Amino acid sequence: MQIRLEKVRKWLQEQDIDMCFVQTKENVFYLTNFYTDPHERLMGLFLFKHNEPIFVCPKMELNQVKAAGWSYDIIGYSDHENPWDLIEDRLQKHNVKLFENIAVEKEEISFSRVESIQKLVHGAEIVSSEEILNSFRVIKDDKEIQVLREAAILADYGVQVGIEALKEGITEMEVLAKIEYELKKKGIREMSFSTMVLFGDKSGDPHGNPGLKKLTEGDFVLFDLGVVLDGYCSDITRTFVYKSYNEKQKEIYETVLQAQKAAIEFSKPGIRIGDLDVVARKIIIDAGYGEYFPHRLGHGLGINVHEFPSMSHINNDVLKEGMVYTIEPGIYLPSIGGVRIEDDILITKNGHEILTKTNKEFTVVS
Amino acid sequence: MQIRLEKVRKWLQEQDIDMCFVQTKENVFYLTNFYTDPHERLMGLFLFKHNEPIFVCPKMELNQVKAAGWSYDIIGYSDHENPWDLIEDRLQKHNVKLFENIAVEKEEISFSRVESIQKLVHGAEIVSSEEILNSFRVIKDDKEIQVLREAAILADYGVQVGIEALKEGITEMEVLAKIEYELKKKGIREMSFSTMVLFGDKSGDPHGNPGLKKLTEGDFVLFDLGVVLDGYCSDITRTFVYKSYNEKQKEIYETVLQAQKAAIEFSKPGIRIGDLDVVARKIIIDAGYGEYFPHRLGHGLGINVHEFPSMSHINNDVLKEGMVYTIEPGIYLPSIGGVRIEDDILITKNGHEILTKTNKEFTVVS
Repeated sequence: MQIRLEKVRKWLQEQDIDMCFVQTKENVFYLTNFYTDPHERLMGLFLFKHNEPIFVCPKMELNQVKAAGWSYDIIGYSDHENPWDLIEDRLQKHNVKLFENIAVEKEEISFSRVESIQKLVHGAEIVSSEEILNSFRVIKDDKEIQVLREAAILADYGVQVGIEALKEGITEMEVLAKIEYELKKKGIREMSFSTMVLFGDKSGDPHGNPGLKKLTEGDFVLFDLGVVLDGYCSDITRTFVYKSYNEKQKEIYETVLQAQKAAIEFSKPGIRIGDLDVVARKIIIDAGYGEYFPHRLGHGLGINVHEFPSMSHINNDVLKEGMVYTIEPGIYLPSIGGVRIEDDILITKNGHEILTKTNKEFTVVS
Repeated sequence: MQIRLEKVRKWLQEQDIDMCFVQTKENVFYLTNFYTDPHERLMGLFLFKHNEPIFVCPKMELNQVKAAGWSYDIIGYSDHENPWDLIEDRLQKHNVKLFENIAVEKEEISFSRVESIQKLVHGAEIVSSEEILNSFRVIKDDKEIQVLREAAILADYGVQVGIEALKEGITEMEVLAKIEYELKKKGIREMSFSTMVLFGDKSGDPHGNPGLKKLTEGDFVLFDLGVVLDGYCSDITRTFVYKSYNEKQKEIYETVLQAQKAAIEFSKPGIRIGDLDVVARKIIIDAGYGEYFPHRLGHGLGINVHEFPSMSHINNDVLKEGMVYTIEPGIYLPSIGGVRIEDDILITKNGHEILTKTNKEFTVVS
């Protein structure tokens, strides 16, 4: 954590920014190793150009913050106290009234919190800390990579449980419940997003909601799920056919698979990120299904299930060692159903590693 | 929905506010009947003093918004468009540049969104819409009450499943998984918060995390859970003893139960809300456990699992017909464990209705 805090301080010095207030649970976790959902209560981190950082949190969380390894100052407040009063007192030491610019997570911090900061420092300019924090987080270190590997394996397990639960007449929600049940038994407290189990034509909606639809022969079965392990997310999609299939189903499956493999093959340091989407999309367009692939190729993966890099055709950044992201092309035909295949990919020194291990060749399950 | 939109318009006219931008998923749902989790994408509602409202959302959600009953204008945007450009174009009709004050959800809206609004209207004053929207939402109508009743019954069912799952050596996470599994099979997609199952001394932490602790004779077993049904939340807590108990356990149980019942008995229109906390707390203080009841008595319940009214001793508002809230006193003894008992309460014309039906007398389960 010390290294990460130092990197922020260095950035503040380079940019001549007086203070940075960090308050999303993701960035707080990244910088302090303290993971919690603060709900409506204020929790965050004041970072300074020259002085040591200060943590602010409810008094009842104080011991957990220390246990996570925080060794600097903490402002703990009770439910009947206004934390901003305590913050004002403490920051006077640092001559907060003279600060000229303050960095915040502009896309995430609430307007009322910025108002509270602006009361501390009349007339300071508010700048964004998001770009720099994202640029740090986008490159994963060895410890993060190890957790992401394990999280991907647990997502594989979730799909395995789903396949084993399939039987004629079972509902999407029953299969979904079984998957989450088995993952919870392994100690997973949180899925990285709402698990998706879709049968038949319902797989044709990329934002479909699992419900009480029953499984019948010839259906597509689409699983899209992930777990949160030690603060890091995984994400897998697999599509199968149940008992039997028609040629159209196989044709779109093989097209998506070819596109997905091509984008993975193309993944190595130095490649323009947008070109991965281009490569995969070209295969789908050439097969005549371009209009049925309505979303970007994928997204970065880490503390957030959707983070940087964005695997969109307009992304001009290049792949770097330590980036982790999904590749998940899809084809969705309204009345027939949809196919999506998604793996988690790590960029290594000379190429890539596929973190997702579940078989993805066309498979009939029964 | 029409009535709710009219109430907001009336407020804008009374307060002479030119525009209100609503963008939390809860308030959007309340005003439009459209329920979705927009993640990072912009979705919201522009309301005006005199003109008809306008909805803004991703193009792919447009049909769902209409299906939810929205009959006014919609600005749909694609992933490659900047929605604020489209908004600016559309709002020029309404002379947006002349607006002098704009209401937003200050506690929730991000700073960058307010910046986008401020670019539309140079120099407009930003005021808060939260107080008025909360004051509407705090009184539930008949349809909302019916959903809250059903949601409470499903939470009862969750506790029932939990009791039946108990056996020597089972872990907290296994019981938790079983509860959520059975609720998902009934079509529940989302719990209203992270389900809590705590054994033994772990029940002594009001913010405890379920884990791999195993059940043994003499343990407290604490369940705290709720479901989201049709957009509305329930919340129940029950505490049992497993197989056998000691006198201390029974003593703190009976104290909490007496406090909980007293606060419920006191619930009727016209009562100062803070007095409910005072009534319950007095019983716990008189029994010598005041310092072991560290939280407020409860919270309002509705689209959010924590909403208004706050059942805190400092709340000077009075109970009104249609309010729904929890009553959940607790006593937490560090080495022995904790007891919390929580029901969902509706204020009726002359008194109250207890929405939670699970037995709460001291019970040994086995």
